[in-house]
Amino acid sequence: MALEPSPADHFTFGLWTVGWPARDPFGDATRAPLDPVEAVHKLAGLGAYGVTFHDDDLIPFGADDAERDRLIERFTAALKETGLVVPMATTNLFTHPVFKDGGFTSNDRRVRRFALRKVMRNLDLAAQLGAQTYVMWGGREGGEYDTAKDVRAALDRYREAVDTLADYVVSRGYPMRFALEPKPNEPRGDILLPTVGHALAFISSLEHHEMVGVNPEVGHEQMAGLNFAHGIAQALWQGKLFHIDLNGQRGIKFDQDLVLGHGDLANAFALVDLLENGGVGGAPAYDGPRHFDYKPSRTEDMTGVWASAAANMRMYLLLKERAAAFRADPEVVEALAASRVGELREPTLAPGETFDDLLADPTAYEDFDADAVGEPGYGFVRLNQLALEHLMHAR
Amino acid sequence: MALEPSPADHFTFGLWTVGWPARDPFGDATRAPLDPVEAVHKLAGLGAYGVTFHDDDLIPFGADDAERDRLIERFTAALKETGLVVPMATTNLFTHPVFKDGGFTSNDRRVRRFALRKVMRNLDLAAQLGAQTYVMWGGREGGEYDTAKDVRAALDRYREAVDTLADYVVSRGYPMRFALEPKPNEPRGDILLPTVGHALAFISSLEHHEMVGVNPEVGHEQMAGLNFAHGIAQALWQGKLFHIDLNGQRGIKFDQDLVLGHGDLANAFALVDLLENGGVGGAPAYDGPRHFDYKPSRTEDMTGVWASAAANMRMYLLLKERAAAFRADPEVVEALAASRVGELREPTLAPGETFDDLLADPTAYEDFDADAVGEPGYGFVRLNQLALEHLMHAR
Amino acid sequence: MALEPSPADHFTFGLWTVGWPARDPFGDATRAPLDPVEAVHKLAGLGAYGVTFHDDDLIPFGADDAERDRLIERFTAALKETGLVVPMATTNLFTHPVFKDGGFTSNDRRVRRFALRKVMRNLDLAAQLGAQTYVMWGGREGGEYDTAKDVRAALDRYREAVDTLADYVVSRGYPMRFALEPKPNEPRGDILLPTVGHALAFISSLEHHEMVGVNPEVGHEQMAGLNFAHGIAQALWQGKLFHIDLNGQRGIKFDQDLVLGHGDLANAFALVDLLENGGVGGAPAYDGPRHFDYKPSRTEDMTGVWASAAANMRMYLLLKERAAAFRADPEVVEALAASRVGELREPTLAPGETFDDLLADPTAYEDFDADAVGEPGYGFVRLNQLALEHLMHAR
Amino acid sequence: MALEPSPADHFTFGLWTVGWPARDPFGDATRAPLDPVEAVHKLAGLGAYGVTFHDDDLIPFGADDAERDRLIERFTAALKETGLVVPMATTNLFTHPVFKDGGFTSNDRRVRRFALRKVMRNLDLAAQLGAQTYVMWGGREGGEYDTAKDVRAALDRYREAVDTLADYVVSRGYPMRFALEPKPNEPRGDILLPTVGHALAFISSLEHHEMVGVNPEVGHEQMAGLNFAHGIAQALWQGKLFHIDLNGQRGIKFDQDLVLGHGDLANAFALVDLLENGGVGGAPAYDGPRHFDYKPSRTEDMTGVWASAAANMRMYLLLKERAAAFRADPEVVEALAASRVGELREPTLAPGETFDDLLADPTAYEDFDADAVGEPGYGFVRLNQLALEHLMHAR
Repeated sequence: MALEPSPADHFTFGLWTVGWPARDPFGDATRAPLDPVEAVHKLAGLGAYGVTFHDDDLIPFGADDAERDRLIERFTAALKETGLVVPMATTNLFTHPVFKDGGFTSNDRRVRRFALRKVMRNLDLAAQLGAQTYVMWGGREGGEYDTAKDVRAALDRYREAVDTLADYVVSRGYPMRFALEPKPNEPRGDILLPTVGHALAFISSLEHHEMVGVNPEVGHEQMAGLNFAHGIAQALWQGKLFHIDLNGQRGIKFDQDLVLGHGDLANAFALVDLLENGGVGGAPAYDGPRHFDYKPSRTEDMTGVWASAAANMRMYLLLKERAAAFRADPEVVEALAASRVGELREPTLAPGETFDDLLADPTAYEDFDADAVGEPGYGFVRLNQLALEHLMHAR
Repeated sequence: MALEPSPADHFTFGLWTVGWPARDPFGDATRAPLDPVEAVHKLAGLGAYGVTFHDDDLIPFGADDAERDRLIERFTAALKETGLVVPMATTNLFTHPVFKDGGFTSNDRRVRRFALRKVMRNLDLAAQLGAQTYVMWGGREGGEYDTAKDVRAALDRYREAVDTLADYVVSRGYPMRFALEPKPNEPRGDILLPTVGHALAFISSLEHHEMVGVNPEVGHEQMAGLNFAHGIAQALWQGKLFHIDLNGQRGIKFDQDLVLGHGDLANAFALVDLLENGGVGGAPAYDGPRHFDYKPSRTEDMTGVWASAAANMRMYLLLKERAAAFRADPEVVEALAASRVGELREPTLAPGETFDDLLADPTAYEDFDADAVGEPGYGFVRLNQLALEHLMHAR
Repeated sequence: MALEPSPADHFTFGLWTVGWPARDPFGDATRAPLDPVEAVHKLAGLGAYGVTFHDDDLIPFGADDAERDRLIERFTAALKETGLVVPMATTNLFTHPVFKDGGFTSNDRRVRRFALRKVMRNLDLAAQLGAQTYVMWGGREGGEYDTAKDVRAALDRYREAVDTLADYVVSRGYPMRFALEPKPNEPRGDILLPTVGHALAFISSLEHHEMVGVNPEVGHEQMAGLNFAHGIAQALWQGKLFHIDLNGQRGIKFDQDLVLGHGDLANAFALVDLLENGGVGGAPAYDGPRHFDYKPSRTEDMTGVWASAAANMRMYLLLKERAAAFRADPEVVEALAASRVGELREPTLAPGETFDDLLADPTAYEDFDADAVGEPGYGFVRLNQLALEHLMHAR
Repeated sequence: MALEPSPADHFTFGLWTVGWPARDPFGDATRAPLDPVEAVHKLAGLGAYGVTFHDDDLIPFGADDAERDRLIERFTAALKETGLVVPMATTNLFTHPVFKDGGFTSNDRRVRRFALRKVMRNLDLAAQLGAQTYVMWGGREGGEYDTAKDVRAALDRYREAVDTLADYVVSRGYPMRFALEPKPNEPRGDILLPTVGHALAFISSLEHHEMVGVNPEVGHEQMAGLNFAHGIAQALWQGKLFHIDLNGQRGIKFDQDLVLGHGDLANAFALVDLLENGGVGGAPAYDGPRHFDYKPSRTEDMTGVWASAAANMRMYLLLKERAAAFRADPEVVEALAASRVGELREPTLAPGETFDDLLADPTAYEDFDADAVGEPGYGFVRLNQLALEHLMHAR
């Protein structure tokens, strides 16, 4: 049944999501730590496809090699038992005090070197577990005070770090790509590469730019008031949507990490429509994992944790169903045409037409009646109403 | 005297700034139209270096050729008399109803063709007047409703437009570069290329990417809650700060276009320090026009308009003076060192060091004492306090 | 049929909504002016119950008495023909340049006196047309610069104005109440009485506080990132929800005035549930007009205007239907109980219990096991998922 | 010397400010716990006047009576030695998991009863230590999901709690007033009484309204994009500024708790001008403690903590000095008059004038020339520039 999640849906969860003990800036943990092995089994039972992890989620910071091996072995066994895969891994460069001014861009060079080593160590494990994507969220790369961080030098170091790690992955033969995860602020006052746009621009400057894409997170873009579906569209357009973090956020405020759709529901609809249908395009635009990076609210116990995990998948499947119906509705097809949405795919210049040809075309300027062309409406409100009615299953 | 503006300071103003009649979404104009010739004379008298314009600022939309020639002649004469230059020009693709769904990315192809022609026509005039930079603010390129705009198709058309116009400029031999001006929203619900980052990323995809940079505006980035000085640093780092729009904004709300420094004063200090001193770098980072794109408040009459124009320049010069004193203060130099700000310029890997060398360095991991290195503070609050005391001239 | 609007639904529209010619800060009008008489007929045809107006919507600023009488007569005739009522009226104290620093709180006393007169004149007309509510939106009461407005003096003048006008209404025997409409900013940088809370607090200081309530607008509260349903709940709790402005807004940005539900859809659901069902309470919480104060997007022509008007009513009715189903669902009832939502209605102290009794109750402190009571989850995520599934008609 | 803090300046600090161990949502503590006794001595040495505390800052949650007495004794001794006073105290109803859905408004009645008891217990200690103000920050009173909290019932319980506690204080003869501290969100998605306005409105509904005022915090209002100086002016106007929390915030984002002036510097200037000079009024508007509720950045060690504490006081004194110079400048006096700022103190109606008199005054309407009166500018930009130049000590 379409609304029952299955591995074919490619739903994945971070160990740190269902495993979040719900400690927040003003409160102590409300839930006990969750054994990653239990997380694997539960998520498998709910229909997930895979799990992802930060090094420290699996192996506590500072654990010795024996402990490390033991933990990896248990985890691997759980994966084998359940069939879950690990399509993505990442590094924690933000919890320990040593990273208080960042990892790759800490003002302290010793920290930067340690950060590189910490990532390399986890790249080995990620490769061993079969991860194809390695995410980098530089949550501590930034600052609060404008004169305390030389941003251009920081970007130099950021580039040095990413290119060095890309070299490393290439040299080791790991079939792995990187995905940078932007965020505008929190925990730092301002984080470097604050939006999908800034990350894409940075990537274009890398030596190994072809190996590096983005991992946008719904709430992170919405914390800057940006349209998430627009950001994803630009990432896709630039061939850089290597991974995605799904969740919910209710506007510009602290990072809420709600369940997908529990924030801006209409934009979640547009997002799923884009991923699944390519929007007006009609072909799926993304085939990677549907990764949930959310936090079960601090008010919930473990029953609520698993309910929230299930809610994420159910929301995705509902939105997918609604988006499919929207695209299939003949009235929508007609409304899209009336709004000339598809006409935007037609190049502005005709095939072979040069700017000189355009200059020679009086219909484009000399005989163009701006007032007349400006008069008819685009019918966008009607189209949006149709979309919302499909979202609400009112048609 | 340092605080008296002179053409050497390269201050420029848009005709539409001092000429804004102060009509807003809830109110009628409170000021009479301003003759561009008068604007030129007044701005020259205040110490400005140049003026900039949209085609329609100078020549009303739909004017015939005779009127156009007459207006250009008067304007050119005023420039000659005053010595003001025109370093930048731009196109109005947003006021007339025909552009209600955008210019380069309107769903209506006829509008897109007309938009190209309108720009080409003004490129000729811009070249004739000596402009080296041509700004593109796509304020109507966007939408309110997620299903009404195929964002990927829109970016295709945007690219087509910019590349076509770059071709045109090259073919005509105009010594001109383009600068895209990002804005997150207003007048559209969401505008394409909403931040400096998104514009830089888009530019990296252009055929003529080397001819295209950005023209960031203080308030536009701050409308997304982003740190403007950080955005400028990234634009500089990518070699793309082709022009800049200076003004003020008080947080995330409608576009206020206040005087420079009349919004986030501390960030304005960091900005001028970056432009003039390169921040910690010590060398100016930008040598283009200091362009004011602001609106004299609707409460002001023409006396207030000219007072506000003067206030922009005075704020810039005051901030420049304060930033110079900040950089020259020995206690600041010491505090910067204590905060390891300069250390970020040192590459993380030593010259010639490979990742294999790093892996072989036990001080970077095996013998690294994270707790000990994480203990000392960075002294950032003290540094910020020093900056603010220089801004306040309290040292 | 429940989704077909009828006068029994009490839907009302401002003349300025469907009549907005779509001029915005960056663009000229895209639609011709709409004759109020035509608006009345069209809205009646769509199923509306009434219309509302600013004085200047009906009678252009400065019209002479003969013109005024003629316009009122035509309008009254249209009302009679259609059966539409005028439950609310208001004054335009923001469009004309004379109000550039406000009406009731302009620094210029002459303006304040004129503003009072303008309101009194329209109160007479409002009474004549049968309005029971008179709205005051002080969109120009505020400032951009902190030292330019003595806020305490401004609040004195605001109070003087409202109390004087209340006196006037009482003396004339008009059966009319006032409703203040808060907004945080735009067109002023900061507007006085920026939120529902500030307006309610101000009202508590009035001599005629019993005659004055609030007219909250969805987008205005959301422009400050506030939860609109929460604000309405507080207004209801304080007995002050005298009127309501329904529309949509997509986050903290300029005032969008979208169709209801075209912004934050989930919060719109909560709002309608509160108005219609009293939330968990089970009884309607508001019986006044459902007033739409929105703007048909500038991309639309008159066909789109009427489509958007209809969309507002349809969204309301759909949300009402969904909210009714939500409240009727036994699983929801069970989930609400599990979340202890109803338990909050039970007073914290038992009937007759004093604080001394509470001090003597060891179960409240001495024997209270905080760890044990803190352990169970509240099931809020499940409850929200149920709400969203009803909103999406997925149950 | 005016810039050296002394007890006469009435600077106070929360124990939890300098004592914050710098644990944040993404990172572990970077500083060791600080002994309250050490805090008292250090703050005294820096020139502070007093300290404030949450019950749990002084006495760990769950400590037995003997431990409690021992801790109070040590603390009292330190106060005696240093001469510091305790003008304010408050309760922690947010850290322990039992408060995960709030204290006074938890859906769980048992929690509400426990919360009341916890407050009563600390009221006794506050009275014993001489506190005149008792702050209530309801950081957990709120929700994330609109249907999970009956807001009207929550306000009933909130009122019940505050009135019960006021009764208690009265009955015990404690010379103490309450101050509610608003915040829009974080840690809850939406907090009840989100702004100064909402709290003032709520207070007007209390039985003991005369005993309850507000404790506004700079950053909390700015997290909603509101003008803090405006909010303080309204609180003063309503006679309800019982206490104040000074700090800094850089726009709408997570709660930053920066040093005063390290956020919006210009608004901090307006705030201090209002508190010290009553703005244009010329008389101090507030005589209570200048209380810093901030967090030393996580990047700092204890040296940085004390530097940041000193920075708060120095910023206040600098702003006070600048504001005094601003008010004393004859050009400012002239500019204020030109802007008619003082004219707003003049009632709109003349002494004894009735609305009938106003109706009979043709200069107010019939002969009023709106166009002419609307023409002159208010000179607000010049006035703001003068304020900023005083802030920057450029005059």
